[in-house]
Amino acid sequence: MTDQINRVVLAYSGGLDTSVILKWLQQTYQCEVVTFTADLGQGEELEPARKKAELAGVKPEHIFIDDLREEFVKDYVFPMMRANALYEGLYLLGTSIARPLIAKRQIEIARMVNADAVSHGATGKGNDQVRFELGYYALAPDIKVIAPWREWDLTSRTKLIEFAEAHQIAVSKDKRGEAPFSTDANMLHTSSEGKVLEDPWDEVPDYVYSRTVNPEDAPDAPETITIDFERGDGVAVNGVGMSPATLLETLNEMGRRHGIGRLDLVENRFVGMKSRGMYETPGGTIYHLAHRGIEQITLDRGAAHLKDELMPRYAELLYNGLWFSPEREMLQAAIDHSQEKVAGTVRLKLYKGSVIVTGRKSPFSLYSEKVVTFEDDQGAYDQRDAAGFIKLNALRLRLLGRRDR
Amino acid sequence: MTDQINRVVLAYSGGLDTSVILKWLQQTYQCEVVTFTADLGQGEELEPARKKAELAGVKPEHIFIDDLREEFVKDYVFPMMRANALYEGLYLLGTSIARPLIAKRQIEIARMVNADAVSHGATGKGNDQVRFELGYYALAPDIKVIAPWREWDLTSRTKLIEFAEAHQIAVSKDKRGEAPFSTDANMLHTSSEGKVLEDPWDEVPDYVYSRTVNPEDAPDAPETITIDFERGDGVAVNGVGMSPATLLETLNEMGRRHGIGRLDLVENRFVGMKSRGMYETPGGTIYHLAHRGIEQITLDRGAAHLKDELMPRYAELLYNGLWFSPEREMLQAAIDHSQEKVAGTVRLKLYKGSVIVTGRKSPFSLYSEKVVTFEDDQGAYDQRDAAGFIKLNALRLRLLGRRDR
Amino acid sequence: MTDQINRVVLAYSGGLDTSVILKWLQQTYQCEVVTFTADLGQGEELEPARKKAELAGVKPEHIFIDDLREEFVKDYVFPMMRANALYEGLYLLGTSIARPLIAKRQIEIARMVNADAVSHGATGKGNDQVRFELGYYALAPDIKVIAPWREWDLTSRTKLIEFAEAHQIAVSKDKRGEAPFSTDANMLHTSSEGKVLEDPWDEVPDYVYSRTVNPEDAPDAPETITIDFERGDGVAVNGVGMSPATLLETLNEMGRRHGIGRLDLVENRFVGMKSRGMYETPGGTIYHLAHRGIEQITLDRGAAHLKDELMPRYAELLYNGLWFSPEREMLQAAIDHSQEKVAGTVRLKLYKGSVIVTGRKSPFSLYSEKVVTFEDDQGAYDQRDAAGFIKLNALRLRLLGRRDR
Amino acid sequence: MTDQINRVVLAYSGGLDTSVILKWLQQTYQCEVVTFTADLGQGEELEPARKKAELAGVKPEHIFIDDLREEFVKDYVFPMMRANALYEGLYLLGTSIARPLIAKRQIEIARMVNADAVSHGATGKGNDQVRFELGYYALAPDIKVIAPWREWDLTSRTKLIEFAEAHQIAVSKDKRGEAPFSTDANMLHTSSEGKVLEDPWDEVPDYVYSRTVNPEDAPDAPETITIDFERGDGVAVNGVGMSPATLLETLNEMGRRHGIGRLDLVENRFVGMKSRGMYETPGGTIYHLAHRGIEQITLDRGAAHLKDELMPRYAELLYNGLWFSPEREMLQAAIDHSQEKVAGTVRLKLYKGSVIVTGRKSPFSLYSEKVVTFEDDQGAYDQRDAAGFIKLNALRLRLLGRRDR
Repeated sequence: MTDQINRVVLAYSGGLDTSVILKWLQQTYQCEVVTFTADLGQGEELEPARKKAELAGVKPEHIFIDDLREEFVKDYVFPMMRANALYEGLYLLGTSIARPLIAKRQIEIARMVNADAVSHGATGKGNDQVRFELGYYALAPDIKVIAPWREWDLTSRTKLIEFAEAHQIAVSKDKRGEAPFSTDANMLHTSSEGKVLEDPWDEVPDYVYSRTVNPEDAPDAPETITIDFERGDGVAVNGVGMSPATLLETLNEMGRRHGIGRLDLVENRFVGMKSRGMYETPGGTIYHLAHRGIEQITLDRGAAHLKDELMPRYAELLYNGLWFSPEREMLQAAIDHSQEKVAGTVRLKLYKGSVIVTGRKSPFSLYSEKVVTFEDDQGAYDQRDAAGFIKLNALRLRLLGRRDR
Repeated sequence: MTDQINRVVLAYSGGLDTSVILKWLQQTYQCEVVTFTADLGQGEELEPARKKAELAGVKPEHIFIDDLREEFVKDYVFPMMRANALYEGLYLLGTSIARPLIAKRQIEIARMVNADAVSHGATGKGNDQVRFELGYYALAPDIKVIAPWREWDLTSRTKLIEFAEAHQIAVSKDKRGEAPFSTDANMLHTSSEGKVLEDPWDEVPDYVYSRTVNPEDAPDAPETITIDFERGDGVAVNGVGMSPATLLETLNEMGRRHGIGRLDLVENRFVGMKSRGMYETPGGTIYHLAHRGIEQITLDRGAAHLKDELMPRYAELLYNGLWFSPEREMLQAAIDHSQEKVAGTVRLKLYKGSVIVTGRKSPFSLYSEKVVTFEDDQGAYDQRDAAGFIKLNALRLRLLGRRDR
Repeated sequence: MTDQINRVVLAYSGGLDTSVILKWLQQTYQCEVVTFTADLGQGEELEPARKKAELAGVKPEHIFIDDLREEFVKDYVFPMMRANALYEGLYLLGTSIARPLIAKRQIEIARMVNADAVSHGATGKGNDQVRFELGYYALAPDIKVIAPWREWDLTSRTKLIEFAEAHQIAVSKDKRGEAPFSTDANMLHTSSEGKVLEDPWDEVPDYVYSRTVNPEDAPDAPETITIDFERGDGVAVNGVGMSPATLLETLNEMGRRHGIGRLDLVENRFVGMKSRGMYETPGGTIYHLAHRGIEQITLDRGAAHLKDELMPRYAELLYNGLWFSPEREMLQAAIDHSQEKVAGTVRLKLYKGSVIVTGRKSPFSLYSEKVVTFEDDQGAYDQRDAAGFIKLNALRLRLLGRRDR
Repeated sequence: MTDQINRVVLAYSGGLDTSVILKWLQQTYQCEVVTFTADLGQGEELEPARKKAELAGVKPEHIFIDDLREEFVKDYVFPMMRANALYEGLYLLGTSIARPLIAKRQIEIARMVNADAVSHGATGKGNDQVRFELGYYALAPDIKVIAPWREWDLTSRTKLIEFAEAHQIAVSKDKRGEAPFSTDANMLHTSSEGKVLEDPWDEVPDYVYSRTVNPEDAPDAPETITIDFERGDGVAVNGVGMSPATLLETLNEMGRRHGIGRLDLVENRFVGMKSRGMYETPGGTIYHLAHRGIEQITLDRGAAHLKDELMPRYAELLYNGLWFSPEREMLQAAIDHSQEKVAGTVRLKLYKGSVIVTGRKSPFSLYSEKVVTFEDDQGAYDQRDAAGFIKLNALRLRLLGRRDR
């Protein structure tokens, strides 16, 4: 792919890899590079990225550093949580959900600066290249995409560092050696994979965790909290109203303290291989369970079961990078339709790595003590109806039994 | 339903309720009652049931007390666990899975003793009546079913006790007052519901729990265990080979000690109402996660994702009492087909209410360190293939984008 | 169900059965009866129903005769057709789709006239009782429902006619004998079942068909027509813009002439038995295929396949009477989301019982001759991308193959 | 892909394209070519392929011409028909289902002759390359695959013919000009696409059809036939027992005569584009409907509906070339489990392009005239059961309605 490129927007973290990419793009494509650095709550200083970009010759007006935290939680994390999405039964999709937003913003910038290409620092073996690029292509079908890791010959750490040094790119000491694992972080989670994690039988070393305390070091006393929901989304913690990002940050801090949300997983990548990852999703884990809790009393069975059946597909679409696809939007339309009355309060207990729902209430509760009670229900439910209900549900089985047994 | 009944097989626990039913059947239907008491590992003495039945006039040869523990785990719990079944995302179906076995054995006994009817002590509001009766009808389409709770006028505790006393049925002191909740137990779990649990906002009182210690009282040190699997089923704990029932009992004891498997749930009953239950599934919770753990490295993605998509339906079928149905058997055939190479060892850590997988290995592992590694993979994977993969996956989105955006 | 009833709204056709019901309700419940007769395009004179109701003592202001044809097609038939709904692979759900609208209007009238009950003439073995009553209960949870066929003792034709004669209800000659089959009709279809149709091996006698000519008697020359669609709905036939009902009527006439839309089916009823029915859906059959035709070029694959996977569930919900349910609405939201650009023209050929699509075009076509062509595509598609696409799709199968084969 | 190749097995039809490929492989890879020609009932002489291969220098013992017709129908077509598979609602998958068998046999031959590579003549834009290669890789993970159309520079018809003439490959006259469309044929169907078919608005010219008469030219009298089924598979036509291939051939001839099984379709390819094809599946269309017909009376509703819900996924897997995948095998296990009692006789009427079921009977029928009858059913069904059935099915809707409406 050595088409003529004039201007490329690079998803730029300011770290070693994307700094090398920045320079490599300038050299290889003889093009202008525009940097885009997104604040998704990854917890890093972003201003240094500006200086590094400037040093690399990027024009000041071509350096974009955007705080996307509220948009991230409100328009990506929350819709996904409405679906109770779990990939392969366990994973809260923390990396997957960030990519579409980055891609979308990158395309917006490409349009603003009249760029003809976009570039990212994801490798050729992972899911993120797919997620970025499907996003790019969906939003800008004719954009050119440059994926340096699939193109260049900097195929070893040594070569990368040599390139950096040859081009006056600062290499901090801790980047010189081989990192024992690689990470990705945003407000929803931190993921770690590679090297020391590659043997799925080996326990994850304690130093890999960065977002949660070890449950064994968590407080000896449980903490009880409440989350309020409106239209399927969290709006308050412990009765205090909060913006989406603030709410997630608040839950993150609570989860961190109690060692909540660690997951050691071997998962199936879209590109066809299995990989082992370690995820920390403190606030998201709490939120996920709370959302299920409030749905328990406000969602009708038909809606709840349909959601459960659609969920694995929805999660797979997100994992595979198909956020901007008609089928994800269709599923979202169905899911969102169900959330209007998903409102009320859930109480949870956090304790040494676990989180459990201990109560839920709602002005829209479908739970009827009057109907369910073992006590006298004053005619709310006629037990004799159950006989007919069972007889007709059994009819086909009886006809079958008469034939077969 | 006052058809002429000659002989009825009653699912008989020996407790107050089924003792009253026994007598009521004799009186109401002027028929011979055959009692069937199943040991499903509920942890109660069953021999007293024999004496009570004898006292009530049941012929000795008509008193059946069967130890079904191994069959229960091997032919019901394990197949369900192969499906990773969770009802409404959370519930391990401990009650649901016991009913088909009881129904099946009851029908076998009915055939042996030439009975023309069966009876059970489930109420008219719950799921268990459905599960029992769909099982009966599927296995014996022309059997008569007597559900006393839907027929009689003993509609209050007081009337029930009056009936008992009028018929020389012993009423133990603790049964005299109103029980603060009702329970069901078997080797997989104990469930509790009713009365003090009826308000889903109220926290479950500590005295309701009977199978697990409070996580806060669990040992301060985590315990690490291993479970070995073959063909999708557990075969050993900590390297010691065990029968299915022994394995589950062993995990139960471990789970109990560490406060594992408590669940406070509001669920949707098949009969149309929401109910709030508390479940304790200590060993089952560990086993469920371990099974997912071993599948992570031994199941292909296609098989794994199909299983995840079929699971909610499978769980719903079990919950609704449709174990003996063609569609459950079809799903089981699909699931079982996937389990042949689901074998190996999973390591788990138990700690104060939580259980996490910390490692898994298998002679049939599909995880390839050679393919996934960030290091030099010696050609196992060609990163340039990813470009084509993405381009063709993107093609439809690009055509769509050109049309729409 | 002999609760006190003051006023009941009866779904009233003016035929013998509902005339008997009218009288029976007055007698049995000593209540005022309000009649509701819907014009759904069944092709019968409805004004005679007014006279009969008056004769039976219904107050003029309590006789409702409503033309619901446009609403029926626009808000029920068309949304269902957007889903390409087929029950059990073949049936276009012509009866199912009419019931919710009747139930809805009946409840509206009940509110207007302050009635406390509703009643219908569907039998206790069929699906329609379920469809009516689930509609009633969903829209008016506390309404009383009277289903005479499940309550009364007029269990034979003879008794029904005796009752009619005893109450001055006119019995036309052709109703005196046993009808050889029973029918239901509306603008979408006519269904026939019972008696001469009850043996599923016997061919449907020619006299059963009323809406279509025998294909063998249809014109020897095919007829080519076009249907235009906008936002997923038909808007014109042969270029002539039409309202929904007019459009369906137009297609009905075309289908009738060419013997299109006959279906002999054994289906599974919701109440648990199999029944054999004969359906004639002339216009609907044409429309269904045309809608698939326009979707072929305007729907993305992801949307199309998701629709196909959701369709059987959607059709089952409609068949079972769950139109007014959260899960049907959720599915509809997903389906409708996909239809915005489903617009353009489909050409079809009608000939002696068959209808085939022969062409489709659209301003929103996703079909790209440039991409698909065997000829030089000028770089629109790079065939080498396919190599990578296949290699990564194959990766998991190769890992599996290395393990297993 | 210029790895060293020693011996390659080519899927060889003897036509111009694969003859060019044969020579191109010999030249480009300097390797020995083994030819494999499969008789799948495509209706061509295969022995000429032997001579052409010999002329091209292939050793006699390296020329494989296999009659796979019975295996094709028995182990591929019939299992697919058990699923009632239709891709995108309409297409009977005639091309898709042939590819896995060819791939399997090709790999078997590769093992026999110790080849290290396989090759095929499918282009880089179509589905068949994917189907062949996923089959190869699944069955022989380390095989080398050569897809000349993705590699060579013979990118126009002119170049291809020049190459042929330069290498003494006979070019028949009709191959010299541009063919107006391309075809694929086997016993199940003939497909046509390209050129004159590329505009989806243009009607398919009559000369494109080769397997069926124009319905307008079909006999004026309908023909009534019967098909007998055992365990889900056809075993006899008009009462005459037949092998699978003979049965399909017999139906093909009947279908051909009556103009049955033509389909004009725009479909979504796995590689991401839409294409327009014309299919003729005369016998398959009859068989498909007959299979549904016999299932109607022998399959339980639960099994039937589950099959309907799984079908689109199953069809998609086949279309995408995933026959040899765990998920297809899982679905097949579920489907096959349902077919044991799918046995009996279906009667169909063939007439001028249409085929309809007019009767079905079975020793395993689940249809119960006694239960379904409008006449006195002597207690087989208690209509009052329906009241309870409806009440409990309505319960959740009523609770919802009380909350919402």
